Amino acid sequence: MSASTEQEDALVTSTDPLHPANLISELCASFYRLGWVTGTGGGICIRTHDKVYIAPSGVQKERIEPSHIFVLPYPQAEPSPHTDRIFLRRPKLNLKESACTPLFWNAFTIRNAGSCIHTHSQNAVMATLLWEKEKMFKISHQEMIKGVRIGGNGPTLSYLDTLEVPIIDNTPNEEDLKDSMKEAMEKYPRAAGILVLRHGIYVWGDDWQKAKTQTECLDYLLEIGVKMKLAGLQTVLNE
Amino acid sequence: MSASTEQEDALVTSTDPLHPANLISELCASFYRLGWVTGTGGGICIRTHDKVYIAPSGVQKERIEPSHIFVLPYPQAEPSPHTDRIFLRRPKLNLKESACTPLFWNAFTIRNAGSCIHTHSQNAVMATLLWEKEKMFKISHQEMIKGVRIGGNGPTLSYLDTLEVPIIDNTPNEEDLKDSMKEAMEKYPRAAGILVLRHGIYVWGDDWQKAKTQTECLDYLLEIGVKMKLAGLQTVLNE
Amino acid sequence: MSASTEQEDALVTSTDPLHPANLISELCASFYRLGWVTGTGGGICIRTHDKVYIAPSGVQKERIEPSHIFVLPYPQAEPSPHTDRIFLRRPKLNLKESACTPLFWNAFTIRNAGSCIHTHSQNAVMATLLWEKEKMFKISHQEMIKGVRIGGNGPTLSYLDTLEVPIIDNTPNEEDLKDSMKEAMEKYPRAAGILVLRHGIYVWGDDWQKAKTQTECLDYLLEIGVKMKLAGLQTVLNE
Amino acid sequence: MSASTEQEDALVTSTDPLHPANLISELCASFYRLGWVTGTGGGICIRTHDKVYIAPSGVQKERIEPSHIFVLPYPQAEPSPHTDRIFLRRPKLNLKESACTPLFWNAFTIRNAGSCIHTHSQNAVMATLLWEKEKMFKISHQEMIKGVRIGGNGPTLSYLDTLEVPIIDNTPNEEDLKDSMKEAMEKYPRAAGILVLRHGIYVWGDDWQKAKTQTECLDYLLEIGVKMKLAGLQTVLNE
Repeated sequence: MSASTEQEDALVTSTDPLHPANLISELCASFYRLGWVTGTGGGICIRTHDKVYIAPSGVQKERIEPSHIFVLPYPQAEPSPHTDRIFLRRPKLNLKESACTPLFWNAFTIRNAGSCIHTHSQNAVMATLLWEKEKMFKISHQEMIKGVRIGGNGPTLSYLDTLEVPIIDNTPNEEDLKDSMKEAMEKYPRAAGILVLRHGIYVWGDDWQKAKTQTECLDYLLEIGVKMKLAGLQTVLNE
Repeated sequence: MSASTEQEDALVTSTDPLHPANLISELCASFYRLGWVTGTGGGICIRTHDKVYIAPSGVQKERIEPSHIFVLPYPQAEPSPHTDRIFLRRPKLNLKESACTPLFWNAFTIRNAGSCIHTHSQNAVMATLLWEKEKMFKISHQEMIKGVRIGGNGPTLSYLDTLEVPIIDNTPNEEDLKDSMKEAMEKYPRAAGILVLRHGIYVWGDDWQKAKTQTECLDYLLEIGVKMKLAGLQTVLNE
Repeated sequence: MSASTEQEDALVTSTDPLHPANLISELCASFYRLGWVTGTGGGICIRTHDKVYIAPSGVQKERIEPSHIFVLPYPQAEPSPHTDRIFLRRPKLNLKESACTPLFWNAFTIRNAGSCIHTHSQNAVMATLLWEKEKMFKISHQEMIKGVRIGGNGPTLSYLDTLEVPIIDNTPNEEDLKDSMKEAMEKYPRAAGILVLRHGIYVWGDDWQKAKTQTECLDYLLEIGVKMKLAGLQTVLNE
Repeated sequence: MSASTEQEDALVTSTDPLHPANLISELCASFYRLGWVTGTGGGICIRTHDKVYIAPSGVQKERIEPSHIFVLPYPQAEPSPHTDRIFLRRPKLNLKESACTPLFWNAFTIRNAGSCIHTHSQNAVMATLLWEKEKMFKISHQEMIKGVRIGGNGPTLSYLDTLEVPIIDNTPNEEDLKDSMKEAMEKYPRAAGILVLRHGIYVWGDDWQKAKTQTECLDYLLEIGVKMKLAGLQTVLNE
């Protein structure tokens, strides 16, 4: 093994369960049990000050090992037709970084996020179908709204606030969501996540704990919103 | 480490899996898997004869460690604008005690409870929505009613009893539920728990086993009640 | 410890994971995760040639330890107002044997069962409500019917057979179900289980594997039957 | 132990968690938790270059041990009234190979699969009931369609493709599905799985990872399809 490879592997090797490479493995397995990342879909990325840790594309998310993780320097310029994304470490296996990478990057650059989660939760997909015309999921007067932060990185919402999550159209290639997600994030600076029609949701936070907590709160609100709508209850009061 | 810190840490350090600090960690992880405490919501507190063990506010409930637990002396006077709550031990991390503390205290002082559980279970929230007008969830003729105790600390209900759980309005700040919860507990002395509209449920018992068992029975009854109502079945016979 | 206590404890002490006392602990924990035995309800008993192993009443079923298990000689006469049930071993704790004991005994004496399972599964309870008038749950043309045995201890049903599970009324005391369960078992000798209105189901088999397998098949069929009925699909063809 | 038995046992004995005999045990336990293989139904088989590993029939799928696995040489002629299936290794217990064996073999011979999965998932069964007249489950415009491969072994579908899964009639004996499954696979060469009415689904892939991933994607699509249909939403756009 070359000295360089050893140094690169050290980036994802740690006995600390809270090291990003260990956390991504553990959290993806936990998200699998929640039905968020089955069929290799979805995942989580973590950014420390100057490094981004990302899982591979198209792998079983509940079976990721720390050695499978990509490490990228942050910040870096957008890849263009003439430049490639820069990596500090690639897994030795024949793997490609997650197709969500440009979407995760939106969360880093636009909201200064330390972590971003993408799920294919059926609660998210059902909500995009039931609120398809409005292009916006809305719910009010739910305790769990208090767990969601304004813009995903600001102060938490109040019980008296109405939660609004924009729904953008899906695209055949995940990478192509980058611009419409960016546009929605800029148009709705208070939104803590972006729903993708017939696809899922992107949620971010200052760190992995805050991203995870907010994903749980949003998924809960999407689930109860869908139940309420199907039961004939209105999800927003005083409209 | 000072002698004082060592003594304080000893309050939450034990190899006994049934020590309150260990139990709170284990039970919160188990409640997370049931969907009761996702997004940092909900939790359990345990009171032994003269000590109360409480988890921190705003933390991932499935990742609590015994060292995160607060210990308070019991009884103690209500904190007032001029006095603070008294602690025997605070975790060294920058944590605040659970926002449910005043609500848990209601269970201790009004019903002499040894444990109190708060969940954000969607069964509870859906029930508060479907029984919102009556301000009371009611169900009869269900075997699981026999697992619920009169007032939460008395003899168990009979199969022939109708279970009634009052629903109080939610407030923007969890602490502000204290008075209306107290009022409902006093107005309905037979109630084994208090539902909070669009929020969840508080359930208590003589000890953690009884509090947990009754929470499971009530959650089961809320779930089947919601299913029955949505299927067009009446939940109370002979009304 | 007296020699007698040592001998009695030996009845529930084994390193073999398939020893009945170990199995009951393990299977109850597994049934808890399926939602079959929450709130201390339900459970499983196992009979070897001449011994019956039974869990205590009113305990958290997912936290049973082998040392909590009762052992009874088999066969033995019914307890009467003048005689008690005979035990080979009682746990030292202040515990009573499961209130299901007389019901489990029905399965032993009437069908020569080696194991009997009782669940409070919501699928069972919903089925008793949706088929309450017919006093019989019926479903046909489902692959899982092939996992159910005629009478619970005979050959398996064919895909072309209609599954019928009688529903008996619930009683305030679980013990009082004994006679009506016995009556239903004798009136419907092909039934592989007995549903109890607003309560749950009893299922048995030649051994714990067959009892468990049939409980899983019946629970699956109750679940799909309820889904079909609520979706407006008829559960029996060619009626 | 004879030298021959030792050699045969070596076929299913390995410390490598990715050895087929270990994988079948682990994956079946995981499928049990998903509700795919309860009541001994369903399972997975794995084919390496020249060997097929298959679980026994009628056993609890979550409790399989590597020593229970059958190993068969591949390829081999179909068993006929005059010839038996050939085995390299049979478990010593009194077991029969899975009744799905001829169905799994279809996947090997017709699509050159390296693994085939059969589930009794209720999502699959509900879909066969709700799309019974069309004899074809169809869904379009779902991100998870992109995880499904044309024919199960070709390139993945695009988001713009409509997923079609044929539904064949069930038969009293599982083996008798062989011909109609084969017929459906030949008639619909783009199908990545075959649904069986009131029974479940067969899904295959080049290897166990691809078979598992596609089963998860298809199960997800069946689940969301059923939810959409019951909510009055059409599952195929632009029809």
